[in-house]
Amino acid sequence: MRVGIVGGGQLARMLALAGHALGLDFAFLDPAPDACAAALGRHLCGAYDDRRLLEALAASSEVVTYEFENVPADAVEFLAARVAVQPNARALARARDRLAEKRLFTELGIPVLPYAAVDTREDLAGAADAVGFPAILKTRTLGYDGKGQALVRDRAELEGAWERLGAVPAILERFVAFERELSVIAVRAQGGEIRFYPLAENTHRGGILRVSVSRPGDPQQAAAEGHARRLAQALDYVGVLALELFEAEGRLLANEMAPRVHNSGHWTIEGAATSQFENHLRAILGLPLGDTRALGHAAMVNFIGAMPERARVLAIPGAHLHDYRKRPRPGRKLGHATARATSPEALAPALERLCALAEETACAPGDGLRPVPRT
Amino acid sequence: MRVGIVGGGQLARMLALAGHALGLDFAFLDPAPDACAAALGRHLCGAYDDRRLLEALAASSEVVTYEFENVPADAVEFLAARVAVQPNARALARARDRLAEKRLFTELGIPVLPYAAVDTREDLAGAADAVGFPAILKTRTLGYDGKGQALVRDRAELEGAWERLGAVPAILERFVAFERELSVIAVRAQGGEIRFYPLAENTHRGGILRVSVSRPGDPQQAAAEGHARRLAQALDYVGVLALELFEAEGRLLANEMAPRVHNSGHWTIEGAATSQFENHLRAILGLPLGDTRALGHAAMVNFIGAMPERARVLAIPGAHLHDYRKRPRPGRKLGHATARATSPEALAPALERLCALAEETACAPGDGLRPVPRT
Repeated sequence: MRVGIVGGGQLARMLALAGHALGLDFAFLDPAPDACAAALGRHLCGAYDDRRLLEALAASSEVVTYEFENVPADAVEFLAARVAVQPNARALARARDRLAEKRLFTELGIPVLPYAAVDTREDLAGAADAVGFPAILKTRTLGYDGKGQALVRDRAELEGAWERLGAVPAILERFVAFERELSVIAVRAQGGEIRFYPLAENTHRGGILRVSVSRPGDPQQAAAEGHARRLAQALDYVGVLALELFEAEGRLLANEMAPRVHNSGHWTIEGAATSQFENHLRAILGLPLGDTRALGHAAMVNFIGAMPERARVLAIPGAHLHDYRKRPRPGRKLGHATARATSPEALAPALERLCALAEETACAPGDGLRPVPRT
Repeated sequence: MRVGIVGGGQLARMLALAGHALGLDFAFLDPAPDACAAALGRHLCGAYDDRRLLEALAASSEVVTYEFENVPADAVEFLAARVAVQPNARALARARDRLAEKRLFTELGIPVLPYAAVDTREDLAGAADAVGFPAILKTRTLGYDGKGQALVRDRAELEGAWERLGAVPAILERFVAFERELSVIAVRAQGGEIRFYPLAENTHRGGILRVSVSRPGDPQQAAAEGHARRLAQALDYVGVLALELFEAEGRLLANEMAPRVHNSGHWTIEGAATSQFENHLRAILGLPLGDTRALGHAAMVNFIGAMPERARVLAIPGAHLHDYRKRPRPGRKLGHATARATSPEALAPALERLCALAEETACAPGDGLRPVPRT
């Protein structure tokens, strides 16, 4: 039974590692000759809209999924006419476009920060009036890891920021001081059953996720689940869905969703009864979902731009290493480590050492990783 | 960093799945064109004593290990002259030959059942006098999964049994009614540090392991560790070492050792902080050992000869499936499932369902799996 994946990066790689245990085969469509998932399946090396390769992917797969939301819409349509594609094209379309995504949140009654569409230069002034400052200007499509975003402190900076982002359709969103960044990972089965992992509390820097800490029993769990459930149901979603949230003045505000396995769920490999990767595969293949319960407390630290020495990570008690085998490049996610313990207090020393190691080795624009405040 | 493995079966496959997370590459030497590990690395397809392939394995690997103890001695010697081989040739030689193994146990003061060497037909009578009946006649080499063994009830059956085993050098061992079959998995690092997993209690049938249940806190833990520690130290052992034991009248008796990852340690993938596979790799690569603590209580059930339907395994709460992707054949280990829970009582229902599923699907000579008595 083969699963086709559009994309052959670390998410595809971790899906494959989970899937081989279940006896699955994999094919990856990725233009990079050194795509890091390639060692774990068949690599179809070419553009995401290469019809010949899409045809081959569809023909050899029982179901096709993807590891990023910027898959070209016509590639998805082409695939969907030939093979089951999960999550479905509608979910992908909503997640690909920040404006469509915000509108969906609003339609479903999921609170968001004030925002306005900026399709043309003429929209800038009205958007500024509606949203206020400080604000963040974000391109509607193709943004990830902080790319396609600019902080705009006042009206005078707005037009310049829009130019620098390429003068493409965007949204302007109010920037507020929030207390926490959280994410909830849901998995929904073909029959509609939905399960949730405990919330993760996330630390970004330079737009890139650095640390995720699992928060079993968090007081915001039920509210976050409610939002993710409405989203997944509205989209008739199948697979893993990540919803990123801000907590401000005790209230959850939806930031964005990811129609795929998500970096803030990597801790589930060691920290939950079933990983997000295995559960995504179970869901898209129509298999029973696995238990999403936390196994104690876990934290994940990303390695950005450079990998620490393997032995130094493994010397940290309770640490597990994930090296994606990607070529180092500033700002690139190359691997992560997870630590797990029976309590937040027992987790703290390992998390501190992992953060120190990540900070020492990290290589990203404007780097310097602040320690995680609470464990 | 590449690890070479002699053998490309399920143990090699699970080593590779653990190792890819750590960023390792793998090469497998295996004569079977459909060796089930081949999807996860480079497959050198040919005989275990093929000098050209051994040369290639050595040249492309940082360290070579093996998944079975019957690697030809001169192949090991050939490899060891070219590349680090772990565990070392001496450990392999002792484990390959049941007589050498028993003598080692005895030298180290590790209790064993009465036994005697049977090199020729002339030795049979003296062995019978020394050992008594009932007894088991076992070929000195090449035995596994109950192959190369015969139960001998009395003196009259002895010569016939020896003929049926091929009239090759053997040992005759007293057969006693034991209370439990246990195994202890140890992992020893290059610097001599040694760690132990909680004991597993094992159920065999037809000579094939069917069920292993982890026994954290077992009263025999310290005694088993003592035996395994002496063995590992005496052999200057590096890697995972399994020691199978009988418990009879409250006393542990060594049955046999396996100089490799072991079927009775498969539960450690989900049931321990670090799996036996990851720890074997950490040890042979000179990396720090991982935590061997149990995560609650776990049980593993083998699927023999035929695989159950994937969805039926995954529908069992807490169950994890491992499908080795091997061609079905009566008596062949094709996969296993593990269940994990917070207590033996909570584990019982999943274990019962897994046993029932394994019994229903199993295809092995003289099959019919008895339920595990205690959980």
